[in-house]
Amino acid sequence: MLRRLQMTLSDSFKKLSLSKQADSTATKTLLFKSKKSPVPILVLADANSPTSASDIGKKINLKDLRAADDSLWSSLLKATKNDASPFSLDSDCHIVLDQSLSQSTTPIEVKGVDGQFTSIDANTLTEILQSNATKFDKLDFAAAPAAAPAPSNAPAAPTSQQRKQAGKIEGAAEVAVGIRKDVDFPNWYTQVLLKGDMLDYYDVSGCYILKPWSYNIWQAIQKFFDGEIQKIGVENCYFPMFVSSRVLNREKDHIEGFAPEVAWVTKAGESDLDEPIAIRPTSETVMYPYYAKWIRSHRDLPLRLNQWNSVVRWEFKNPQPFLRTREFLWQEGHTAHIDHDSASDEVDYILDVYRRIYEELLAVPVIPGVKSENEKFAGGFYTKSVEGYIPTTGRGIQGATSHCLGQNFSKMFDITVEDPEVARKARAEGRQLKEGEGKKFVWQNSWGLSTRTIGVMVMIHGDDQGLVLPPPVASVQVVVVPCGITAKTSPEDAEAIEKGAKAISDRLVKIGVRAKADLREGYTPGWKFNDWEMRGVPIRIEFGPQDLKKQQALCVRRAVNPNQDKEPLPLSQLEEGIPKMLDRIYDLMFNKAKDSFNDSLEVVNDFDRIVKALNEKKVLAIPWCEEVACEKDIKERTENASDGDKDEKQPSQGAKSLCIPNDQARFGKIEHGKTLCVGCKKPAKRFALFGRSY
Amino acid sequence: MLRRLQMTLSDSFKKLSLSKQADSTATKTLLFKSKKSPVPILVLADANSPTSASDIGKKINLKDLRAADDSLWSSLLKATKNDASPFSLDSDCHIVLDQSLSQSTTPIEVKGVDGQFTSIDANTLTEILQSNATKFDKLDFAAAPAAAPAPSNAPAAPTSQQRKQAGKIEGAAEVAVGIRKDVDFPNWYTQVLLKGDMLDYYDVSGCYILKPWSYNIWQAIQKFFDGEIQKIGVENCYFPMFVSSRVLNREKDHIEGFAPEVAWVTKAGESDLDEPIAIRPTSETVMYPYYAKWIRSHRDLPLRLNQWNSVVRWEFKNPQPFLRTREFLWQEGHTAHIDHDSASDEVDYILDVYRRIYEELLAVPVIPGVKSENEKFAGGFYTKSVEGYIPTTGRGIQGATSHCLGQNFSKMFDITVEDPEVARKARAEGRQLKEGEGKKFVWQNSWGLSTRTIGVMVMIHGDDQGLVLPPPVASVQVVVVPCGITAKTSPEDAEAIEKGAKAISDRLVKIGVRAKADLREGYTPGWKFNDWEMRGVPIRIEFGPQDLKKQQALCVRRAVNPNQDKEPLPLSQLEEGIPKMLDRIYDLMFNKAKDSFNDSLEVVNDFDRIVKALNEKKVLAIPWCEEVACEKDIKERTENASDGDKDEKQPSQGAKSLCIPNDQARFGKIEHGKTLCVGCKKPAKRFALFGRSY
Repeated sequence: MLRRLQMTLSDSFKKLSLSKQADSTATKTLLFKSKKSPVPILVLADANSPTSASDIGKKINLKDLRAADDSLWSSLLKATKNDASPFSLDSDCHIVLDQSLSQSTTPIEVKGVDGQFTSIDANTLTEILQSNATKFDKLDFAAAPAAAPAPSNAPAAPTSQQRKQAGKIEGAAEVAVGIRKDVDFPNWYTQVLLKGDMLDYYDVSGCYILKPWSYNIWQAIQKFFDGEIQKIGVENCYFPMFVSSRVLNREKDHIEGFAPEVAWVTKAGESDLDEPIAIRPTSETVMYPYYAKWIRSHRDLPLRLNQWNSVVRWEFKNPQPFLRTREFLWQEGHTAHIDHDSASDEVDYILDVYRRIYEELLAVPVIPGVKSENEKFAGGFYTKSVEGYIPTTGRGIQGATSHCLGQNFSKMFDITVEDPEVARKARAEGRQLKEGEGKKFVWQNSWGLSTRTIGVMVMIHGDDQGLVLPPPVASVQVVVVPCGITAKTSPEDAEAIEKGAKAISDRLVKIGVRAKADLREGYTPGWKFNDWEMRGVPIRIEFGPQDLKKQQALCVRRAVNPNQDKEPLPLSQLEEGIPKMLDRIYDLMFNKAKDSFNDSLEVVNDFDRIVKALNEKKVLAIPWCEEVACEKDIKERTENASDGDKDEKQPSQGAKSLCIPNDQARFGKIEHGKTLCVGCKKPAKRFALFGRSY
Repeated sequence: MLRRLQMTLSDSFKKLSLSKQADSTATKTLLFKSKKSPVPILVLADANSPTSASDIGKKINLKDLRAADDSLWSSLLKATKNDASPFSLDSDCHIVLDQSLSQSTTPIEVKGVDGQFTSIDANTLTEILQSNATKFDKLDFAAAPAAAPAPSNAPAAPTSQQRKQAGKIEGAAEVAVGIRKDVDFPNWYTQVLLKGDMLDYYDVSGCYILKPWSYNIWQAIQKFFDGEIQKIGVENCYFPMFVSSRVLNREKDHIEGFAPEVAWVTKAGESDLDEPIAIRPTSETVMYPYYAKWIRSHRDLPLRLNQWNSVVRWEFKNPQPFLRTREFLWQEGHTAHIDHDSASDEVDYILDVYRRIYEELLAVPVIPGVKSENEKFAGGFYTKSVEGYIPTTGRGIQGATSHCLGQNFSKMFDITVEDPEVARKARAEGRQLKEGEGKKFVWQNSWGLSTRTIGVMVMIHGDDQGLVLPPPVASVQVVVVPCGITAKTSPEDAEAIEKGAKAISDRLVKIGVRAKADLREGYTPGWKFNDWEMRGVPIRIEFGPQDLKKQQALCVRRAVNPNQDKEPLPLSQLEEGIPKMLDRIYDLMFNKAKDSFNDSLEVVNDFDRIVKALNEKKVLAIPWCEEVACEKDIKERTENASDGDKDEKQPSQGAKSLCIPNDQARFGKIEHGKTLCVGCKKPAKRFALFGRSY
């Protein structure tokens, strides 16, 4: 274990100084044992947090907790209690991390395995400890021990210490996210995903658990997409996840793009495999040998197959849930066509389905266009994409890609048919085809959309209270919470309120609204409000004694509702009013996101303006020559001119092309020969979107 | 490559003598080159097949084929043409295999890498060659070269030579399976799957491609199952496919069952991983650490999650499509409960959903029951299963399993809640809970169903003409084929027939029948009939001039219709008649399979009868003591008494317990203390099903 920890640490220390920093958080390491626990308990806490054995014991439900003696320190951590490092751990242990450390925005000072203090960021620290713990807890050491078991998603109330930290929200509700989106976006994103019940961190770095709340969104996307591709005759199938190295290496340009990230299986049980076998990073080379076999005549075209699967790309950049993960879910479509026309029609059709998934399901505006030579798919002919924009970071993000592979792969894999036109002509001329005459390599496409969609949606719509889900994909669109039941309420009235809440939900379910009555016992209405708010449910209906009397549902919109305005809706208008309200919520969300994207688009005609505009979080439309060297040059020059750390594991500060938008007219006019490229001053061809990106 | 081939060969030679056998097929190895092919062409053919370069060239569309010179033999195969082995191949090559060899039921004699002839079976030979070929073809050398390109699924016509072989069907239609189910079941199964367009063999041994025709069936099963589990509140999610070795090894009994088959990732790109990472063989240890984290109170119970994914079990037994594959698709449900009652209710509910999938969707009768101690899930409390039966081989087959894991895993992973009953009692007594009082380990279940379902369905319903699909899962339920259009037919009549066929299909689609008009050009109606027959479409409608005149659809049922009877259905009754006919087809299929299962069930009270009954392809219900040692003893004694090869890679000839059926009454009465176990003569507890199995 030691060796792995050191490796991981040395990676994460690249950007952090090894000397003690002024603006950093000091820590202490403690070790306990308990008769109730089969393993020792190691605690890493803020140096200022109260950490009595009895307080900690109450919080982790091990009331007989006592400090470890020297022999335990020495056997477990190979050190005395004064110079022990939590990273020296070499056997099973329950690790308890101070929650304030896991949320810290300043570097954390922890004793390293060499006995010296070293700096580490909160995410890395959490991940390392979690992945090495037999059992792992984050605890709020400052909070009083809870009297009753906390519901599983309820984080502890923020402490005064936490509120002092930058990015924390003063007076935030008990169960809100607790970190401001506009101040500490990366931590906000993590917290929203965790507290919104979308995912959990996992034992293997770069992999995440998709909980039902996010997986439901993926299923909604699947359902829509399957319907749209079925219309053009695409069928689903499943190819194995393993690829032999021989097949993987067939297309050289293509594999060059993926080779550094390919995961290799070399052992089964105790036996070494005779030949290592790769896990697919994408399936072009997996599938195309079979296309060569299956496509025997032009009558077999178009062949259109799609699969929903997971692929593995073992990236060494910092992982980020949904956006960059080592295993991710996606669909990959692979099709073969008689000619370029048929292939390119499909590229456009699929691209538009992708646009509709972003815009119509996720309320996320995207710009469709074609990728530059630099950014196109390795081994392909051209790539079209939809490009999104994250206002908080000012970065563009590729939404999905639809590639025309041309005939490159069909030549490599010998996927041919006899050209029916040539054959017809020969027949008309009354002659046989000559050897090889009319042999035609098919045209191919591939296109993919991944769970990244979900990450983009969260980044764009989420707010300081948590997730905000667009109605089309929310697995609960309306939650009904019975309210106002107190000790004074008569049992009859209480029952009438609960029944009324249930009846509202039942009526909505009947007309196809995904509604739910939250009748959980033991939680206050306020706690429920916050719970559903954090999880982003589009409409909350409060139903209390007054509402029962007035026969109304008090509706609170989650999205674009800064003052938490409540709208009463007569129960008689429920079936009409709620679907309308859901539509309005979608419009509000989409228009807000669209305005924000539009406001951040700037046509730039002067190179000096580029970095300034990037720093203002803009995406740039520039007249561009479309040459590879020019794109590289723009990226390099803007990277050098930008502030901030240069870290291979972080997204680049330089600008790269996002796409050349289909809709050119909105950016003005390129006069051929007159309008010059902003990068290199050669004649510009079209407007291209440039920006920092994920 | 050499080393791998030798390894593979030495495995498959275990059962085959190395000396030349009397009843075996001799072969010849040929080598060609062509200007049209980037790689040489190696041909392995029956020694008696005609193999002129020009004939072969025409068949593989390389008309300039010429024999290789000595230098090519030597560079490619490291030998002269007289002692070269096709297994010595060490670089890219197009391999062409004589189809009669790939279908041979006798051992095939091939030159081994040592220059000596060695025996090999057809499947292994095909797999080895296929997995080492850059391009692979099976060709019928005896058939005349085709004039036009063959449609992708059409195998060549059987030759006289082939018909002579055992198992081949005399006078079989051009596109039928060509191998009799009751004579050569393994080859029949492979051919039905290939020609029925269900799957294709793959480059990595033990992995198969699920083509849309089979994947659609899987999707139908998914849809049904998702609906049924949603009713009890199960939600779908996705856990990563990777498991750290630490987590995998947490539950010892459990991992012992899987360890020998776990695939390990040890490299990413060019880098060795610090620690090998396993690919999940199942997800208990993947998921349960998070259950421990997520379940904080009894209010979080039951927690019911399901995932649709693929798992990897690197088995070294002979792979068999759908039944035993190294990667397979399945669903795995994992749930946690407050007590045994809640858990066991769910085990039964899920078991019944599995039964319904087999019986109601696939028309496959199964017997639900509980597994013996020997056969239960490693680390679980008890396992229930549905057990099917393959009449042709007389083997039982486990259909799906629903496990109650008891508290074993929850103790291992520390998944606990405070018992609400104990807490309530303490409150009633006006006292606080004592330390650890009322701590309750949750009860857990896991349950899974895999694509094996599809294999069982094929084995049971398929016939000598190919697949037979049960209407509930057939992605095409009705195919309409326009007929009787000849050179004499007027263009108007031809159009009316085609339009009529299309109209029939449209009307059926409108009422929810999955219908399709086969209007493909360039294929005769006869070819289409056979094509859809091979693919198992439940109803074929022939629509010709007579039918147009009489305004009728001529319906031909695929299943249980030995004489290919045709039933005319007035077009006016289409919407009423076709759904009824589909229902009837389901009934016919299910009842036929059920009768065959019932006829093969025999209550056996005498040990000596067991092996005889097994040899008569029976499944036995025996009064049984239910003890582990007795089951092992029965297996051993029946194995020793059975004829046939003993081969680790083949299914055992011994009898093991399939399940202890829920419905005991059908087998008679066990008198406690009086009825004795057939195996060991101790008192019997219940009837158990014993049989040979997959």
